[in-house]
Amino acid sequence: MKETVINILEEVELNQPIFIEALPGIGHVGKLAADHIIEELGAVKLAEIYSPSFPPQVLVDEDGIIENMKNELHYLKSAGEDKKDYLILVGNTQGLSPEGQYELCGLILDLVEKYGAKELYTLGGLATGQPVETCAVFSAATNKELAKNLEQHEVTLRSADGGIIGASGLLLGMGSLRGMEGVCLMGETPGYFIDAEAAKALLTVLMSLLNLEVDTESLEERARETRKMISKAQQMEQEMIDRTAMPPGEEDLRYIG
Amino acid sequence: MKETVINILEEVELNQPIFIEALPGIGHVGKLAADHIIEELGAVKLAEIYSPSFPPQVLVDEDGIIENMKNELHYLKSAGEDKKDYLILVGNTQGLSPEGQYELCGLILDLVEKYGAKELYTLGGLATGQPVETCAVFSAATNKELAKNLEQHEVTLRSADGGIIGASGLLLGMGSLRGMEGVCLMGETPGYFIDAEAAKALLTVLMSLLNLEVDTESLEERARETRKMISKAQQMEQEMIDRTAMPPGEEDLRYIG
Amino acid sequence: MKETVINILEEVELNQPIFIEALPGIGHVGKLAADHIIEELGAVKLAEIYSPSFPPQVLVDEDGIIENMKNELHYLKSAGEDKKDYLILVGNTQGLSPEGQYELCGLILDLVEKYGAKELYTLGGLATGQPVETCAVFSAATNKELAKNLEQHEVTLRSADGGIIGASGLLLGMGSLRGMEGVCLMGETPGYFIDAEAAKALLTVLMSLLNLEVDTESLEERARETRKMISKAQQMEQEMIDRTAMPPGEEDLRYIG
Amino acid sequence: MKETVINILEEVELNQPIFIEALPGIGHVGKLAADHIIEELGAVKLAEIYSPSFPPQVLVDEDGIIENMKNELHYLKSAGEDKKDYLILVGNTQGLSPEGQYELCGLILDLVEKYGAKELYTLGGLATGQPVETCAVFSAATNKELAKNLEQHEVTLRSADGGIIGASGLLLGMGSLRGMEGVCLMGETPGYFIDAEAAKALLTVLMSLLNLEVDTESLEERARETRKMISKAQQMEQEMIDRTAMPPGEEDLRYIG
Repeated sequence: MKETVINILEEVELNQPIFIEALPGIGHVGKLAADHIIEELGAVKLAEIYSPSFPPQVLVDEDGIIENMKNELHYLKSAGEDKKDYLILVGNTQGLSPEGQYELCGLILDLVEKYGAKELYTLGGLATGQPVETCAVFSAATNKELAKNLEQHEVTLRSADGGIIGASGLLLGMGSLRGMEGVCLMGETPGYFIDAEAAKALLTVLMSLLNLEVDTESLEERARETRKMISKAQQMEQEMIDRTAMPPGEEDLRYIG
Repeated sequence: MKETVINILEEVELNQPIFIEALPGIGHVGKLAADHIIEELGAVKLAEIYSPSFPPQVLVDEDGIIENMKNELHYLKSAGEDKKDYLILVGNTQGLSPEGQYELCGLILDLVEKYGAKELYTLGGLATGQPVETCAVFSAATNKELAKNLEQHEVTLRSADGGIIGASGLLLGMGSLRGMEGVCLMGETPGYFIDAEAAKALLTVLMSLLNLEVDTESLEERARETRKMISKAQQMEQEMIDRTAMPPGEEDLRYIG
Repeated sequence: MKETVINILEEVELNQPIFIEALPGIGHVGKLAADHIIEELGAVKLAEIYSPSFPPQVLVDEDGIIENMKNELHYLKSAGEDKKDYLILVGNTQGLSPEGQYELCGLILDLVEKYGAKELYTLGGLATGQPVETCAVFSAATNKELAKNLEQHEVTLRSADGGIIGASGLLLGMGSLRGMEGVCLMGETPGYFIDAEAAKALLTVLMSLLNLEVDTESLEERARETRKMISKAQQMEQEMIDRTAMPPGEEDLRYIG
Repeated sequence: MKETVINILEEVELNQPIFIEALPGIGHVGKLAADHIIEELGAVKLAEIYSPSFPPQVLVDEDGIIENMKNELHYLKSAGEDKKDYLILVGNTQGLSPEGQYELCGLILDLVEKYGAKELYTLGGLATGQPVETCAVFSAATNKELAKNLEQHEVTLRSADGGIIGASGLLLGMGSLRGMEGVCLMGETPGYFIDAEAAKALLTVLMSLLNLEVDTESLEERARETRKMISKAQQMEQEMIDRTAMPPGEEDLRYIG
């Protein structure tokens, strides 16, 4: 596989869909929020994306079944006839290399543009590195009108206080170059655990911005499950990380034919 | 060389070959087992694979002869007429970059698919980082039926306890996307030495799964030889690793024309 | 986006323009000087350059508006009819990978060559790592005549004392291979803060070399503003750097689908 | 520049030239020896090679003139009519990425093959990391006959004691795949300084193998000059290395547009 592959699973027409992105990142904040919307509102998987820029590995699920690294695009039809539909991008990874990130974000924007998306919301976490009392939601936008509107929704505009790294930033930036407008919402989080509180705060703001309604009750339970899976995984992960951090061991093996 | 090169050494027709992969990895477990099968059962080399994604170097053997970094595909005919044949992939390296791994695994799957392979077994080690009393064999599969079958063969199914990094994981994942089904077997090993015990445990499970018979007697001797070669190599390796870890020294030289 | 994109904003004819490059580097020295020329003398933006070799991120400005990573080419017409015009390259980033740097520098040279540029000045800082009493300006050139001329302008010629890394060096080197001649000017700077003094010394030499006149009064104020923005950004930056430096955290999240 | 560029400077016909490679590496050993042959015997520059896989920078020479990163191929005609000529590859750098090394070595082999080269000698250093009393010369070969012949020339054959990293190994390995045969000679060296003694030992073996005669008297002086240049360069180098090792500083600057 030398090129990114996009498998479209279903033909569908959407009404000016609003594009929401929440690939894995700091504190799992955006991903928790988006996975929750998809499950609670029954969004339908529309496309699977596989890329040579993803980590060269598979995951193992609870049943011992392997799972490819991938991104997935879901759609969600709105109740009202005139209301905009939704496209939601989630997944278990992001591109590894800068070039890979640029290529993937370009392909993803090509895809959502074909469905008529002109508006995008990217979701992430903003790590404080310290315990957070009340979880604030930070944001940035592609234009001043959107930025002004955000201030009416319990959102703190960021101000020359750094960048937005990865797909959440890049989709917004590359989207704006092709006439799409949007917002990045970032839930304040310590950053070192799966943060349901931050995801809830983020979701609350997103619902108010989009006039969506999602029950956030079960969000804490979802976070708890995710935490359990991760803590089970951590011993394994640690080894793998160690293996990557300690090439000598691997090198030894690699030198003998 | 900008592209991966595959040299086919012989024309051969195979009966629904089962594809076994065992490229170098943790504790040399998979490689020891597969090299043992190839030698004991007289598998025949079918193809050599060279790639710009391999480390830019050669190895030196006991006679001072250099050896290219490569992967090699062997085939093994079965005794019975109706029985499936085997394709076995071994080598002295894996691809270095994520993109390289994806490209190589794709090309390798193209190749074994051409011979009719639909079933694959990838072999590796699972590092505990600690001494191992009785060597367990862990596994993951591409579907539930295979996973269930594994439990009848003294194999512990992994459960959301991390991923499978490198060719053993990626071949399984990318294979499943094109309709191939299979299993990854991982011998439990401390991970920091050539582990014949783990290879033996792995081989025993593999033989029981495939109805193959291989004498494992000489496996410990093979491991001993490999250990000797590696310990001879280690002083050299260490320098090379140091050189990589300490670019300053190299940089100095590089700056003067 | 798999390829670098250059958006030309305006058609313009220039008289043998002198090409000045000042992308971000050590101590912000070159960038401060070039941004100052652009603002004080009213240079006009001519082209925007976006590249998959740039960092995969966006910046956030004071108003919460995102800003893409990019390079920008400005032009400046001269007063006299016979006098040479100017092309000035600035931006908020450089290419990340070696291959990216070579590709970008080649494309930029193609572009300025089309406008007739044959002479180039690249601006940077030379880090001492220690406090600097009086800021010297160091230089290197593509030929001996230019080097000799530099010595008449309060410039210290460098002498086999290392290389020039990044766009400032590479544009000069690759330019010389296609018949362009030029000079790299480097303001001596401690290197760990935004250095208006070094930028002023650099600008003074550049003006004397080019017979340009720019008021350097407000340069210190520009540096002060830049420092303020950066110190606001630093807490954020630190986290992001930490995040990059600590893959374990990210890895954890990445493994759970 | 997206592709490697090879500029041929002169048309020349050569008699079965022996290809000698000595790009920068450990202890400057191979490079010192090859530069010495070129100067003492008056080899003529035949081609210049520029590549996007080289470091993105230029060097500055003693006169403040910049110098591109490059490889250079020289030829040397033999005295006798029937005697083989020589092709000698030197330069100020090697490719940085694995893929770059493979591509460059492939292109270089294409080039020397066109002149009829079938035999190659690659020169390097073998680092001990400790002071060396009497400098041994180690070697490896592409076949057993060559290896056997080496043992008659005061050369120690290496034996499964590690690999040969970089162009010296890769040219030999990739060369052997296209029917070229050859030898890698490595002068034993502590590895952390410019080692004229190791270069002299290497050169003595090479001359005996090739029936070449070169006065090694001035080799120590050449080493002394190189050391002087490098020690002048080192303070500068250190900063540059620090800069690379400490992205935070660069990052700060990179984030402010």
